[in-house]
Amino acid sequence: MKTIEVCLTPDLIHQHDLKGKIVVVVDVFRATSCIVTGLANEVEAIKPVGEVDEVKALGKEGYLMAGERGGIKIPEFDMGNSPFEYQADQVKGKKIAISTTNGSQAIIKSEGADEIIIGAFLNLESVAEYVLQSKSNVLIHCAGWKGTPNLEDTLFAGALIDECAEEMKTVGDSALVAHQVYIANHENLFGIAKQSSHAERLSGFGIEEDLEFCMTESEYQVVPRLVAGELIV
Amino acid sequence: MKTIEVCLTPDLIHQHDLKGKIVVVVDVFRATSCIVTGLANEVEAIKPVGEVDEVKALGKEGYLMAGERGGIKIPEFDMGNSPFEYQADQVKGKKIAISTTNGSQAIIKSEGADEIIIGAFLNLESVAEYVLQSKSNVLIHCAGWKGTPNLEDTLFAGALIDECAEEMKTVGDSALVAHQVYIANHENLFGIAKQSSHAERLSGFGIEEDLEFCMTESEYQVVPRLVAGELIV
Repeated sequence: MKTIEVCLTPDLIHQHDLKGKIVVVVDVFRATSCIVTGLANEVEAIKPVGEVDEVKALGKEGYLMAGERGGIKIPEFDMGNSPFEYQADQVKGKKIAISTTNGSQAIIKSEGADEIIIGAFLNLESVAEYVLQSKSNVLIHCAGWKGTPNLEDTLFAGALIDECAEEMKTVGDSALVAHQVYIANHENLFGIAKQSSHAERLSGFGIEEDLEFCMTESEYQVVPRLVAGELIV
Repeated sequence: MKTIEVCLTPDLIHQHDLKGKIVVVVDVFRATSCIVTGLANEVEAIKPVGEVDEVKALGKEGYLMAGERGGIKIPEFDMGNSPFEYQADQVKGKKIAISTTNGSQAIIKSEGADEIIIGAFLNLESVAEYVLQSKSNVLIHCAGWKGTPNLEDTLFAGALIDECAEEMKTVGDSALVAHQVYIANHENLFGIAKQSSHAERLSGFGIEEDLEFCMTESEYQVVPRLVAGELIV
């Protein structure tokens, strides 16, 4: 039976063996929700990078510049970290370079895996189908918040485990914990996610619509994959 | 309002500020359950150390030598890591030096806190009373398993948060996650704890009675505190 495990924050990724695995990177609020939304809305490719300066350099090569630090759009960038910006007509057919507090870092720290794909509630069902059809074992890499576990990514990990439970065996207690938290709250995901530290931090920014959209299950049927440093579908 | 936060594994302790806090160290299976049991049964003091050789050196000074690696008693030691060994007549009035895979390390890594105390389900209520009466904020430091979070320590963190919920505010999502896992399973703690990786690893050792005992709530009314490098009540 294939296995599925969970890393609750990039600060614990050293505890996991990435080799031979599909890594599903998730940053529900909001990087991977943006990536899924963009690639479902005809963005050509999204390049995750660690540093703001790398985004600026790519901007000179024609990429749209996207990113935030601490939930706030970086000045002079074309776009921030709201999924609605990734649905706009202006982004269709374009390439985007993105750097975010947590999501980009988790993608970069997943290097060494056989395959890196992007998960969010917005493409939950498609990710589940994808990993179930693959022959590889699965690691869900939660972006968390500055190195600490967060609630919304843990909920996503639990939701994906739930989708795969009949055909995969969980490995490690982080997977059990995530699954339990999801089972206890699956009928009120947005309600519990609103209690998360991240939602609390962002509550002053007037983006409740963003958060509600990010908690929508399986709105899109795309599975972004990292190929040669860029996310495509 | 005082705050209560959770560190799910010693590998994340760098994310927390220990200064001014009471740290509650927990390693349910089985180090802190042993420590609570011993000090409730007239052991004079228990000295946690990192290395096996340090225990041996203390053995020459008259300490009983206790410890395990990977769940197995260290050869030539007086005792391993079963709470029942810490109830025996031979230990009364004695000092014990102990080194375990996870628990001792978590105690050592809590250095810098205002106060370090020992928690387990066995003394849950007494620990709750103790931290509620204190003026300091609280950090629950889960020993986990070799740097990864584990289910049973997370359950304890959730249980202690539940006891303190009316008078303390949780900080950070690890506390929310732990609380949710506890709420979802509080009527069947031993049932869910048996599914943990640690219980699975130990299942070949014939110690189900140990695990069941460790999940017993508030059997003892002691709160071990670290004073000058030794745990006493």
